[in-house]
Amino acid sequence: MEFEQKFNLEKFAQDDFKAKKALWEKEADYYPQKIKELDLKSIDRFIDYHPKPSKLMKFKVNFAHKGLESIAEAMEKQKPWAVISRLNPSNPLHFGHKLILDELLWLQKQGADIYIPISNDESHIIGKSKNLDESKNIAYEKIIPSIISMGFNSKKTHIFVDSDYPDIYNVAMGLSKHLMIDHIFEFFNFGKDEKKESLGALYYKGAVQQAEILFPQCKEFGGPKPTLIPTSIDEYPYILLARDTAKKVNLIPPAALFLKFQQGLDNKGEMSADRPKSSIFLTDEPKIAENKIKNAHTGGSPLPNFQKEHGGVPGICPIYYLRTYHFEEDKKVEKECNSGEILCGDCKNIAAKQVSNFLASHQERLHDASKRIEEFTLKTPIRSILK
Amino acid sequence: MEFEQKFNLEKFAQDDFKAKKALWEKEADYYPQKIKELDLKSIDRFIDYHPKPSKLMKFKVNFAHKGLESIAEAMEKQKPWAVISRLNPSNPLHFGHKLILDELLWLQKQGADIYIPISNDESHIIGKSKNLDESKNIAYEKIIPSIISMGFNSKKTHIFVDSDYPDIYNVAMGLSKHLMIDHIFEFFNFGKDEKKESLGALYYKGAVQQAEILFPQCKEFGGPKPTLIPTSIDEYPYILLARDTAKKVNLIPPAALFLKFQQGLDNKGEMSADRPKSSIFLTDEPKIAENKIKNAHTGGSPLPNFQKEHGGVPGICPIYYLRTYHFEEDKKVEKECNSGEILCGDCKNIAAKQVSNFLASHQERLHDASKRIEEFTLKTPIRSILK
Repeated sequence: MEFEQKFNLEKFAQDDFKAKKALWEKEADYYPQKIKELDLKSIDRFIDYHPKPSKLMKFKVNFAHKGLESIAEAMEKQKPWAVISRLNPSNPLHFGHKLILDELLWLQKQGADIYIPISNDESHIIGKSKNLDESKNIAYEKIIPSIISMGFNSKKTHIFVDSDYPDIYNVAMGLSKHLMIDHIFEFFNFGKDEKKESLGALYYKGAVQQAEILFPQCKEFGGPKPTLIPTSIDEYPYILLARDTAKKVNLIPPAALFLKFQQGLDNKGEMSADRPKSSIFLTDEPKIAENKIKNAHTGGSPLPNFQKEHGGVPGICPIYYLRTYHFEEDKKVEKECNSGEILCGDCKNIAAKQVSNFLASHQERLHDASKRIEEFTLKTPIRSILK
Repeated sequence: MEFEQKFNLEKFAQDDFKAKKALWEKEADYYPQKIKELDLKSIDRFIDYHPKPSKLMKFKVNFAHKGLESIAEAMEKQKPWAVISRLNPSNPLHFGHKLILDELLWLQKQGADIYIPISNDESHIIGKSKNLDESKNIAYEKIIPSIISMGFNSKKTHIFVDSDYPDIYNVAMGLSKHLMIDHIFEFFNFGKDEKKESLGALYYKGAVQQAEILFPQCKEFGGPKPTLIPTSIDEYPYILLARDTAKKVNLIPPAALFLKFQQGLDNKGEMSADRPKSSIFLTDEPKIAENKIKNAHTGGSPLPNFQKEHGGVPGICPIYYLRTYHFEEDKKVEKECNSGEILCGDCKNIAAKQVSNFLASHQERLHDASKRIEEFTLKTPIRSILK
């Protein structure tokens, strides 16, 4: 009996390992495929060009860009440029957002003004919050303090909640003159079902989001100027539309830097608030975060001895990505995992420690950060005309 | 020859008179027909009920209403109510607008707070102004001073230009969640051609105009409360939509008071800035206005003797309407015209005098009015949630 059981486990471990390797081969192809499909550019040339690229660039979390040349030029000539990073305040931020905030911090150090529109109108309109107040409260109580706690410079960081800065809608109205309904329908592949959507959802997608991308180019902010949107690949259509719209109103087409998703702890896709167990929120109590990590689905083997001999599959492991993207400076974790030197239990313990240390110190800063919201809040009236 | 010519002229005068009478019979039916078609109510009962109805009510310039009961009740119980009257600032105001301003003045005396949204966004988006600034400048330089010069009470009159009061878009966003695209398309009979319109035009019509009608019911203004829109019959679809939308967000369906158009001096339809000769603008120099009046197409006969005998057709005469709606307190003009007692030349002279006197004194007040704009400007932030 014991022999048979051992034999089956070994076979199970082998099959499991093969399946994980195969999955990784498939997944490894996802981003290169996207680059081809959408005609994006790799950021390798930018990394070569920059004396000290960001950690996320070195780790290829930034896997591609569109139009980054305008930013490289502004950096080189020390001309003003801006970065825009939109947030939807239906839930507190998680480590997927931290990834982007880390990149924003680096971009700020390179000279960028950072603009962070928090679209509580979107949360409301697409039904992600009960009402406009609920998402507004999340913005002020959870999101903005977390952003400030990350260490941004208030002189170069401009945050606003859409409904408290309705000036953004002036830009949307100006732009929406140039956005034809049939074009928008085609652009977003609107079929019969989408016409059952609300006018608000259409206008948000078609015009307000465009305004959030383009408004730092208004003359109130010294525009037109080069701008950059660090974002995920699923936002690609908006970037394309914004580049198209920019040309129509004599602005500079915004560049985009595409970041890989932060893998969810449940290994069922990216970290997402829709699957709370997939995500570590920056407002999670450290103990809760540790538990989430301990229950994560890793790239390791069910059989410790097998893993010691053959190693794990870090490429499909959320713990590997969590540690590497957020807490490591080199590829040590990958090596240790591949060689079987470290097993998942120990690796999870390290991750749990890293995450809970981060959360503890992040959350310690939240109280002070809450008092500094005013300092970061954008209030400049927008009265200029986009064409 | 002379006899023949005389004979022809007489015949011509007779035919002309018949044609004018026939036209008047047809036109006289226009408004009663609208009442039937749209299931409106006559305002007779309101006139009977009110101790001192407005002059325009007595003259049936206000020919119908929808839902005026809510206003009558607020008047009776001395509860707060508001009136909203939207203006498109692509041109200065003309006597067609004065008609509405006169009614607003009366409504203000009955206790109403008056809200006047000036939609420079609409002018821009539908291409009625070169850009948002052009229509904004017309608003501040021509329209608002004219409104103030009419004698409104600044404590109960709240004027704003959309792009300078973007808070109105918060209301639009809130409402637009409840406005389904396919419903809007059906509502405005959007066909293939309209889909070539801009997203801005759709959103303006579908959501911003709704916001302009419903915003005084936000809690910042002590709403929900009964509201009234004095408007022309072509705005009826917006009123219907607003009544429908109001119910969806727990507001009181706004009432409407429908005013007849001010007939254009060219007798080719209502006074409209699109046909400058049809309109006397409140900013026209008195001399220019007098000339426009002298060139007006009246309801009189080409043959003075014929007119002396048979009278004119005041029902189709822009001069008759200009004098009656704006300068007379009784039906004397109608009688004098019908009886042939007064001919068009003299009648025009009186109208010219009345208009140029009005314009001179109106324009005398414009300079002071320009300095009082701030006093009338609405600035209350709108942060409340419509559902």
